[in-house]
Amino acid sequence: MSLRGGIDLGGTKIEAIVVDDANAILGSAKRETPRSGGPDDVVRELAEAIREAASAAGTEPAQLAGVGVGAPGAVDRAAGTVARAGNLPGWAGSFPLAAVLGGELGVAVVVANDVRAAVEAERMLGAGRTYPSFLGAWWGTGVGGGVVLDGALWQGRGAAGELGHMVVRRGGALCPCGRRGCVEAYAGRAAMEQRARRAYARGAKTKLFELMRKHGRDRLTSGVWAAALVRGDELATRLVERAVQALGAGTASAINLLDLEAVVIGGGLGTRFGVPAAERIAAAMQPHLFVPDRPPAVVTSELGDQGGALGASLLVRDG
Amino acid sequence: MSLRGGIDLGGTKIEAIVVDDANAILGSAKRETPRSGGPDDVVRELAEAIREAASAAGTEPAQLAGVGVGAPGAVDRAAGTVARAGNLPGWAGSFPLAAVLGGELGVAVVVANDVRAAVEAERMLGAGRTYPSFLGAWWGTGVGGGVVLDGALWQGRGAAGELGHMVVRRGGALCPCGRRGCVEAYAGRAAMEQRARRAYARGAKTKLFELMRKHGRDRLTSGVWAAALVRGDELATRLVERAVQALGAGTASAINLLDLEAVVIGGGLGTRFGVPAAERIAAAMQPHLFVPDRPPAVVTSELGDQGGALGASLLVRDG
Repeated sequence: MSLRGGIDLGGTKIEAIVVDDANAILGSAKRETPRSGGPDDVVRELAEAIREAASAAGTEPAQLAGVGVGAPGAVDRAAGTVARAGNLPGWAGSFPLAAVLGGELGVAVVVANDVRAAVEAERMLGAGRTYPSFLGAWWGTGVGGGVVLDGALWQGRGAAGELGHMVVRRGGALCPCGRRGCVEAYAGRAAMEQRARRAYARGAKTKLFELMRKHGRDRLTSGVWAAALVRGDELATRLVERAVQALGAGTASAINLLDLEAVVIGGGLGTRFGVPAAERIAAAMQPHLFVPDRPPAVVTSELGDQGGALGASLLVRDG
Repeated sequence: MSLRGGIDLGGTKIEAIVVDDANAILGSAKRETPRSGGPDDVVRELAEAIREAASAAGTEPAQLAGVGVGAPGAVDRAAGTVARAGNLPGWAGSFPLAAVLGGELGVAVVVANDVRAAVEAERMLGAGRTYPSFLGAWWGTGVGGGVVLDGALWQGRGAAGELGHMVVRRGGALCPCGRRGCVEAYAGRAAMEQRARRAYARGAKTKLFELMRKHGRDRLTSGVWAAALVRGDELATRLVERAVQALGAGTASAINLLDLEAVVIGGGLGTRFGVPAAERIAAAMQPHLFVPDRPPAVVTSELGDQGGALGASLLVRDG
């Protein structure tokens, strides 16, 4: 039996798994993404994570058929490089992640965009199984996407799927990508946190940062946002509503362009908020839909937190 | 030799042609789209236009292999109906255009969305020939679009391509479609005219309406806008710039989602303004592109005013 490794390299955490031919997860490990240093520090954590997962599955990385890595930023799968990963430390340039991690582990490594890997997993094994064509809308630290058309992920010239950088307010809020008015400028967890911190510094009343400390965090994680919403925190409620409206406008724009059957909501925040988030995004899309009487189905991802790593492991099969 | 008819039913004018197997235009006719009445009045003008074009080609409608009609609004090709055509008189509901026009002419009639027909013509015979994947951006009375992926027009559930109703400013200007912040709310000729009329009524200085009368028009046609720009008219310049910015943001959003090789600019205003419009739209896209170092080619349509009718005639071949 041949085992494969999959690693989801996120802006916040690293999730590694080892799966068998039936995509059953035999071992897994989770680590924090380094916040300082550079690509080499990230590689060290990736290697450690997959070693742990392999060990839990009773094997070691060199025995795997291969390891797939889903990474943020501009990923060149053929070259095995990752560039402009703004949510990773010291990663403004291009780095040969597949070659360096592969050398470290003694196994073939394939890299692809993290969100597209997760969307591919949903297409094959999750919420996208029943929809030949759908949009994956990944609501996390950033906002990513993946477009599945007639059963295949649309790649374009290699970078298709950037739902988070569709423009919903020309000249609007500054996005972590440096542009203005993108969906992510309103809906990305990082952008939401930045806005919350500014409001808090200006004296806005909010429980967000107290909850953050109680959770033992120094960032406003999905869990912190969820806890603040449950407590009726006004600032958190307002910022989440603003995010939902931006996601609604962006996904509706995508649907008006492509007239797809469904939208699958995933990502850290999307997974945490679950069905209520899908319902609110569907409601926010409605006023913008060109054909309002047959909106697409809006559903949540089924593979949850491990979908990204599972999608990464599927890269090995393709490779 | 088998001849085909093609009619482009626009919000402003009706263009009819008769072509041979090699798509050479043997006869053509042009009429104004009725501004009052209802679908029956439009059908009368369509029938008259294709009779004239057929006569110029030395034949008559009943001798044609078929007639294709490109129509605005929500077109159901299988049912032969056209609904919600806001730029046509009395056409809020659904009307069986294929059946009624076919009965009137004694020939099979196929209907499709007007812009998608024009984009299909560019794909087969025009500016899209060399691009397997491109976005058609049709800048006219409204703003339409068509998405060509790997050599085929993407239909989605039948209504794909609504570039004009992608959101570029959430809560922004009112669109003729009734929604807010769509590309068309800023860039559609009808919306631009409405805004110019309001500014003029409030006392804005502009030559637009004087030029309109000189051109013997009672609407701000593409020619009137072009003449005003040449004269350095301030209001016209400002409104065209506003349109270009909205088109730039909308097309950039589509490219960020699909990462296509090219954008083909067509439509009444797009065709009239030509290469400078394509260059300005390309410049307006640039600050929004997620991969700015390899922007798509932005080119003008090659088939010009008759591209819509030519695309409509191609429907017969498919039928």
